[in-house]
Amino acid sequence: MFFIIGELINSTRGEIAKAIAEKDKALIRRLARAQSEAGAHVIDLNAGQSMENEVSDLQWLIGVVEDELGKDVRLAIDTSNPDAMEAGLKACSTPPVINSISNEKGNAGLIKLAAESGAEVIGLAMGEHGMPKTAEDRLEETRALLEKCDHAGLAAERLYVDMICMSVGSGPEQGTQVLQAIWRTKRELGVKTFVAASNISFGLPNRCLLNRTFLAMLIEAGLDGAIMDPTDKRMMNATYASRALLGLDNYCMQYIKAQKAKRGK
Amino acid sequence: MFFIIGELINSTRGEIAKAIAEKDKALIRRLARAQSEAGAHVIDLNAGQSMENEVSDLQWLIGVVEDELGKDVRLAIDTSNPDAMEAGLKACSTPPVINSISNEKGNAGLIKLAAESGAEVIGLAMGEHGMPKTAEDRLEETRALLEKCDHAGLAAERLYVDMICMSVGSGPEQGTQVLQAIWRTKRELGVKTFVAASNISFGLPNRCLLNRTFLAMLIEAGLDGAIMDPTDKRMMNATYASRALLGLDNYCMQYIKAQKAKRGK
Repeated sequence: MFFIIGELINSTRGEIAKAIAEKDKALIRRLARAQSEAGAHVIDLNAGQSMENEVSDLQWLIGVVEDELGKDVRLAIDTSNPDAMEAGLKACSTPPVINSISNEKGNAGLIKLAAESGAEVIGLAMGEHGMPKTAEDRLEETRALLEKCDHAGLAAERLYVDMICMSVGSGPEQGTQVLQAIWRTKRELGVKTFVAASNISFGLPNRCLLNRTFLAMLIEAGLDGAIMDPTDKRMMNATYASRALLGLDNYCMQYIKAQKAKRGK
Repeated sequence: MFFIIGELINSTRGEIAKAIAEKDKALIRRLARAQSEAGAHVIDLNAGQSMENEVSDLQWLIGVVEDELGKDVRLAIDTSNPDAMEAGLKACSTPPVINSISNEKGNAGLIKLAAESGAEVIGLAMGEHGMPKTAEDRLEETRALLEKCDHAGLAAERLYVDMICMSVGSGPEQGTQVLQAIWRTKRELGVKTFVAASNISFGLPNRCLLNRTFLAMLIEAGLDGAIMDPTDKRMMNATYASRALLGLDNYCMQYIKAQKAKRGK
């Protein structure tokens, strides 16, 4: 299974910040359902934009989405604020994905919370020496993070390490370094890898074309999951097609089913 | 540069066989121009369907396409018949790509013709032991082909080795074996690699989705060229996006130009 977190309920997006400020449930319900029906395994919730209300905003988001999709919905609490993470963990009926921990100073509290929770954890391959540039930087950060997790009693099996995509517009080697990092992390460290797939195209035209093309390459390199827009059928199609092409989809059944479902609509 | 041969003028396609039989120049002209304008570097010509007239049909196709695109158009003569190849080579104003030679018995004549011609040669990684199954089979066939070419005085620099794609519907390992074969051929044998990109999806729904997704993976693995339909913008877009993502397109300029050109239309 390719692990998909739906990214749309994020307060850095203007319409989401507005819906949170106005406590407008309709948009949040609609995006939660649409992402779930499109195939997201987890719905990301980010309320960090209005910093002073983050805890109460997050609790409100969790309530709205659980009301829409049921108490067994899998959520991701997307914050770098340990208080908001703690409140979010308590408010969720089902243990949520922790998004995210890193090697940055001051992350010990979040790593401790992650160790105590029961679900998957997104760990960023950054922070020990700032942002990673090369594949080797990413492996170094991953090794440091694994050590901290081990120390805190957080099993590596629960970790998805975000390989930190940056735009290929900012440097021609950004794509290849991430691809190499995934390939090497899988083989040398045996830990699951993850990306925010749309970062690769920041600042460039026709972003979805770059995003879905890169997704195919990432899955070939061994990527285990991504945070992305699952309601963009071209992105979901890229995951179905990639898995079929790599022999990860028995008899191409998931791929064929997804293509039939679309024709039916 | 990613080397693109336009595949559309092929007598195994019903409308082409009909146009050849009726000496209907309009369709041939239109497909030649459309493929050239879409970005094909070479226009493939296959007249093999009506076996008894192959030589004269091929000469007619060459004349029509040269008349449409000029005498410096780069053509590929697509035949396994040495007489047709020889006639095709003589009829072309500019040395054409030879499509193709292989390790099959009886190929010595074609390899000799290829050695004497001046242009690129497509060599199939098959024939020594039938069709290849694994990546290693493909490397073995490539080594055998390189030896024959060397013996005939055909420089390896002129060769593009077709890695023989078969449908992932016929076996889940077909995609990964071809990807591995390309990766290894580039590194271990240093010769250029090539595929017929659409074979991977034979018998499956939404073929272009599989074809363009596989193309991204192939280019990541190091593929140097493909025979494909360049008038399918989704396929060309996959090549532009892949090269931008892999840092093979300086400042993403070709990618950005291609996206602007489309918006302009």
